[in-house]
Amino acid sequence: MEVENKQVILKGYIDRAPLESDMELKLGNKIKLKVSKGSSSILVKNLYLSCDPYMRARMRDFHGSYIPPFVPGKPIEGFGVSKVIDSDDPDFEPGDIVSGLTGWEEYSLIEDTKKLRKIQHDDIPLSYHIGLLGMPGFTAYAGFYEVCAPKEGDRVFVSAASGAVGQIVGQLAKLYDCYVVGSAGTQEKVDLLKTKLGFDDAFNYKEEQDLDSTLKRYFPEGIDIYFENVGGPMLDAVLLNMRTHGRIAVCGMVSQHSYHDKDGIHNLFALIRNRIRMQGFLQSDYLHLFPEFVEKVGDYYKQGKIVYVEDMNEGLESAPAALAGLFTGKNVGKQVVCVSRD
Amino acid sequence: MEVENKQVILKGYIDRAPLESDMELKLGNKIKLKVSKGSSSILVKNLYLSCDPYMRARMRDFHGSYIPPFVPGKPIEGFGVSKVIDSDDPDFEPGDIVSGLTGWEEYSLIEDTKKLRKIQHDDIPLSYHIGLLGMPGFTAYAGFYEVCAPKEGDRVFVSAASGAVGQIVGQLAKLYDCYVVGSAGTQEKVDLLKTKLGFDDAFNYKEEQDLDSTLKRYFPEGIDIYFENVGGPMLDAVLLNMRTHGRIAVCGMVSQHSYHDKDGIHNLFALIRNRIRMQGFLQSDYLHLFPEFVEKVGDYYKQGKIVYVEDMNEGLESAPAALAGLFTGKNVGKQVVCVSRD
Repeated sequence: MEVENKQVILKGYIDRAPLESDMELKLGNKIKLKVSKGSSSILVKNLYLSCDPYMRARMRDFHGSYIPPFVPGKPIEGFGVSKVIDSDDPDFEPGDIVSGLTGWEEYSLIEDTKKLRKIQHDDIPLSYHIGLLGMPGFTAYAGFYEVCAPKEGDRVFVSAASGAVGQIVGQLAKLYDCYVVGSAGTQEKVDLLKTKLGFDDAFNYKEEQDLDSTLKRYFPEGIDIYFENVGGPMLDAVLLNMRTHGRIAVCGMVSQHSYHDKDGIHNLFALIRNRIRMQGFLQSDYLHLFPEFVEKVGDYYKQGKIVYVEDMNEGLESAPAALAGLFTGKNVGKQVVCVSRD
Repeated sequence: MEVENKQVILKGYIDRAPLESDMELKLGNKIKLKVSKGSSSILVKNLYLSCDPYMRARMRDFHGSYIPPFVPGKPIEGFGVSKVIDSDDPDFEPGDIVSGLTGWEEYSLIEDTKKLRKIQHDDIPLSYHIGLLGMPGFTAYAGFYEVCAPKEGDRVFVSAASGAVGQIVGQLAKLYDCYVVGSAGTQEKVDLLKTKLGFDDAFNYKEEQDLDSTLKRYFPEGIDIYFENVGGPMLDAVLLNMRTHGRIAVCGMVSQHSYHDKDGIHNLFALIRNRIRMQGFLQSDYLHLFPEFVEKVGDYYKQGKIVYVEDMNEGLESAPAALAGLFTGKNVGKQVVCVSRD
C-alpha cells in the first residue's frame, strides 16, 4: 500500500542564513508503509520536527564539517519525534515513539536505527524530546555543567536567552544558585525571561546603544560565565566585562554560524588580562552523560523546577518559514514543527 | 656617600608600540649607597634588565589592568638581576644576587623585597634568571604543561618562536615528543629555530602570501596545540587549521597587546566546529609551580637538553632601543640589557 508523502526539500546550496524560499514543499512523492525483510530498518510517521540553528551549516556546500551537508532535492534532515509504523529491527515495534534524526516529510524510512532513542510515554509532552530533553536541552546541560564549570554565586550571562538552549541554561544556572541575566531581541522575550523563565534580569539588545555599558549596568562586578549563543558585537562586549578566570562556553554564534565573520572580534586581548577560558563544544562529545541528563532534567520538569517555552508551527508546509524564522529571531522559545499529533 | 645614578625614564603615556624616543636617558640623579635603618629595604646595583612585550601595556594611561602603568618621569620598572650593595632586610646581605622587579637605572632602592628571589651562583649565566629561568621561561613552562595539556605526539605550532618564551615552548615540546613548528620574522631566526633550537621545522611568516595555506603545508593533519604569541592574522589562520579538541594557549598577542584589534579575528566559528579550547593565562597564576620549574628547567640546561638564545644590548643607554626593538622584531632571542657585569 502506497501513500502520498509530502516532503520539504532544500532547493540548492546557500552561503547565508536560509530564507523560506530556499526550501520547497514537494508533493506527489509516494511511499510504501512497509519495510523490507532483512533491511533492519524502520518506517516512521513523523510527529514533531526540530528547527535548529546548526542546520544552516548543512545548507552550505561544505564537506569539512562534523556533519555532511544536506542533498539538494532531497528532504531536509533534522531531529524529530516519530511513531514507528513498521519495523524490521527487533528493538522497535509499531506504536513505539522514537526520537532522533529523521526527514522533513510525513513518513521516513530510517535505515540507521542505532542512534534512535525510544521514548517512554509519560507526562512530558512528546515534542519536548527534541527540546528540553533533546539535543538543545543536552547542549545546555553539557555546556553549563561541563564547559562552564559553574560555582555557586557565579554571575552568568546568556545570550539568545529565550531560545531552545538559552532558556535551559538560565534555569539550570538559577537552580545552581547563580545570578543570571539574559539578552533577547524583543520585549516579549525579555518579559518571558523575567517572569516565566525566572531569570534575575534581562534586556533587549536591540534597544541598547552600547553593549559594553549595558553589560556594566547588569554586571557591575563583571561576568563569571558567558554562555555564548550569538557571536559578533555581543561577544566583543562580553570580553570587556569578564571577571578574572571567567569561562565562555561557545555554542551558537548564530550571527556568524560556520562562516567567516566580516566584522571580526576585536577584544580577545581580554583573554590574557583576565585569564579567560573560551571553549567551543558540541553536545555530541558528552553523550555518556545523556542518561543522567534525561533523568535529572526530566525530574526537574516533573517537580515544576524547570519549564520550557516552545514555538509550535502547525503542518509540514510551515517548516520552511519556521526554520528561516530562527535567523531573524521570529521564534519565541524552541521552534518546533508539528507534522501530526499522532 | 652619593654617586650618580643614570636612569631610563618614560617621557609620557603612549597608546601604541613604544619607540626609542618615548624613553630618555636621565643624567645627574644622585643616590646614597646606604639604606636607612628600620626601612627593611635593600639597595641594589642592577646588572641585567629584561625587555618584555608586556611592558608596552604599562606605558599606557590605563589603570584597569593586572599591573599599574609606569609613572612618567620616573625610571621604567621591569625584571632584572641585581647585586645587593646594602641591606636592612635580614634575608639579604651585600653581595647577594637577586632577581625580581627593579628600576631601569644603575642602582635601585627596593622597598618591597618579598617577591625577590635570591640566586645561587652556579654554572647558569646570571642573565638567564630573567629569561630561561625567569618570567619568560616560567610563562613557557606553565603555558605548555598547564594550559596546553600536551600529549605525546601532539603537533605543536609556536609563533614568535625564537623569542624569549617561544624558544622554550618549542624545546619543552620537543622534549615531550611532540612535532614542533615555529614561525618567526627573518631567515636568521628561522635558521636558529631549525638548527640550534631543534624545532622540526620553521618558516618566515613575512615571506608567506597566505598563512592558511602555509599552515596546511606544515601541518597537513592539523594543529593540536598553538602557543599564541602574536594575535592578528596568524591566530585567524591557525583557527582554520586546529584539530578536534585542540588547545590554544593565549599568551602574547604582541600584535594587539592590550589594545583593541582593528582588523579583528574572523574565524572563531572554528572553536565550535573543532571543539577548541582557547585559554588566556598569566604565569603569575601558577607561581606554586615555580620551584619545580627552576629545578626541572635548570637541570635540562645543565644536561644540555635545552639551550637559550639571548640578544644582549650593552649599557643602560641602549635600553630604550632594546625595548622598542621587541615590537619590530629586531631582537634575536631574549632581549636583555647589560647594565654592568658585576
